[in-house]
Amino acid sequence: MDICNLRSDCPINYFLELAGDRWSMLIIRDMLFAHKKSYGDFMASDEKIATNILANRLATLEDRGFVRKFRDPANKTKYIYVLTDMTIDLIPLFIEIILWSEKHATVPIPEERLDDLKKAKADKAAFAREVHARVVAQTAALAKQQV
Amino acid sequence: MDICNLRSDCPINYFLELAGDRWSMLIIRDMLFAHKKSYGDFMASDEKIATNILANRLATLEDRGFVRKFRDPANKTKYIYVLTDMTIDLIPLFIEIILWSEKHATVPIPEERLDDLKKAKADKAAFAREVHARVVAQTAALAKQQV
Repeated sequence: MDICNLRSDCPINYFLELAGDRWSMLIIRDMLFAHKKSYGDFMASDEKIATNILANRLATLEDRGFVRKFRDPANKTKYIYVLTDMTIDLIPLFIEIILWSEKHATVPIPEERLDDLKKAKADKAAFAREVHARVVAQTAALAKQQV
Repeated sequence: MDICNLRSDCPINYFLELAGDRWSMLIIRDMLFAHKKSYGDFMASDEKIATNILANRLATLEDRGFVRKFRDPANKTKYIYVLTDMTIDLIPLFIEIILWSEKHATVPIPEERLDDLKKAKADKAAFAREVHARVVAQTAALAKQQV
């Protein structure tokens, strides 16, 4: 953990140094909103993360306590990744990103995302609770498989 | 503008690709919360941004419509940077970062930031309005100087 080498004691900088890089945020997005859980799942995302970046970011996220991993009981050569409570607490931050993009993006928002967008716009606290409940349920279900 | 080369049509990726890198976020933080406005102001921040990174990020932020710049009337060799409305709309996102760090940071929050933290925790919407009013007033005052 490189907490001792933070560039400042600003709370905003704290988050940005720990998890604020783009690829880490996309991995967390995949786990929060698309319920992805494996290396293969993350590789399949539209942004086409490079394998070395994915391996690096997963190791860093694990080292910093944002994700936990355990062996996939269905395939012992693979890992399943789950979010920690600290990371689940990032849901409101991601919802603010979604709302900002909904307002300012100059590219069209795809159909399949409009449902979530509407919910976020209508009542962001309610949408945050809904996502939270979904993620907590999935994380608990995955953790049960842990051997 | 490189909007045509976005890696996906995800609204979260949209923001992350446009302004989600750590140094861009710190420059925006400086303008939103510390009312910084010049190259020298940004260089003086605790995180000690490198001059080439600062120059690069300011040019990119300007190109993408996050900041505007104009010549400093007091010193024609220098520029003053102001935020656009789109960037001012990032205030709620930054407040969520602050609240997350307040809850999860393993380093102490410095005294001088506790006032804002308390306000954010007590009523984040009210704190967002307060920061918004401050930033809009400063941006308008700076824009008046524009020659």
